[in-house]
Amino acid sequence: MDIFILRLGHRPARDKRISTHVALTARALGAKGIFVSTKDEELEESVRDVVGRFGGGFEIRTGTKWKPLLRDFQGTKVHLTMYGVHVDDALPRIKKAAKDSMLIVVGAEKVPADVYQMVDFNVAVGNQPHSEVAALAVFLDRLTEGEGLRAQFDGRLRVLPCERGKRVVDRERAE
Amino acid sequence: MDIFILRLGHRPARDKRISTHVALTARALGAKGIFVSTKDEELEESVRDVVGRFGGGFEIRTGTKWKPLLRDFQGTKVHLTMYGVHVDDALPRIKKAAKDSMLIVVGAEKVPADVYQMVDFNVAVGNQPHSEVAALAVFLDRLTEGEGLRAQFDGRLRVLPCERGKRVVDRERAE
Repeated sequence: MDIFILRLGHRPARDKRISTHVALTARALGAKGIFVSTKDEELEESVRDVVGRFGGGFEIRTGTKWKPLLRDFQGTKVHLTMYGVHVDDALPRIKKAAKDSMLIVVGAEKVPADVYQMVDFNVAVGNQPHSEVAALAVFLDRLTEGEGLRAQFDGRLRVLPCERGKRVVDRERAE
Repeated sequence: MDIFILRLGHRPARDKRISTHVALTARALGAKGIFVSTKDEELEESVRDVVGRFGGGFEIRTGTKWKPLLRDFQGTKVHLTMYGVHVDDALPRIKKAAKDSMLIVVGAEKVPADVYQMVDFNVAVGNQPHSEVAALAVFLDRLTEGEGLRAQFDGRLRVLPCERGKRVVDRERAE
């Protein structure tokens, strides 16, 4: 399944780090790309920098008009919100209905009321206030049944799992 | 199992929002409390505000001397780091070794080298750079096998799961 993220309500001054975490989490857990509704070149740059070093084809686009994107998206549309149906109850239904593509909407602060109507599923990763980064991570991990975290990125830098300390292979230095 | 978090390297000006996400994620996924190595009363306040409204006994303490805490902690010590052993491989061993209490260390930027030696397990929620919020969320969700997200908090405010829109019960207003 091709998974994309739509990040709503990003405010460059306030949300840059959280939105970077959202994007990198999406990448690390198997998503193909992220659309951000506010233009933010710095955010694009910091995500592309990671992709450039660690590999994979993850894409980021900022300044996307979210309404047409959400309306016209061909695939399953899921909005992560603490007000939604608990992920334990929602996920079996989502898997049954899932098409080849999925768009997962994560808001920053308040999300426009339209969004709740425009998606196929409003899903709560627990009905407690916490973090859109955490919600996205748990949702992707469960949706992909752990496969997302086992993806190979084939980048210039590769971290070798290690009991103690750090082992990183830099392909450019190794050659 | 009683689960606590140790947040290292928190810089109040830069990390307040990410650390708030770490704390609220810990709470929402079943941890009992968080220790933060830097004093930050604003961070304490914003986490206690959520606990006050949404319930549960989650505790936050900031300005904790991390070395004695980590050294003397009675229980299993886990450090989440992209350089560690992949969670798929580490988790079965952690569950086998797990005691009644667990301390999960999550760093902000660079973590002191000592930490890798002082813990029982260095665990990577994937060996890609992403987010300590995401790493903590996936680790807790897998460790508790989804139980964390099903906890009841019995707070003044309760969100009722909902297909579209928002339903929140305020016990004080209802009485």
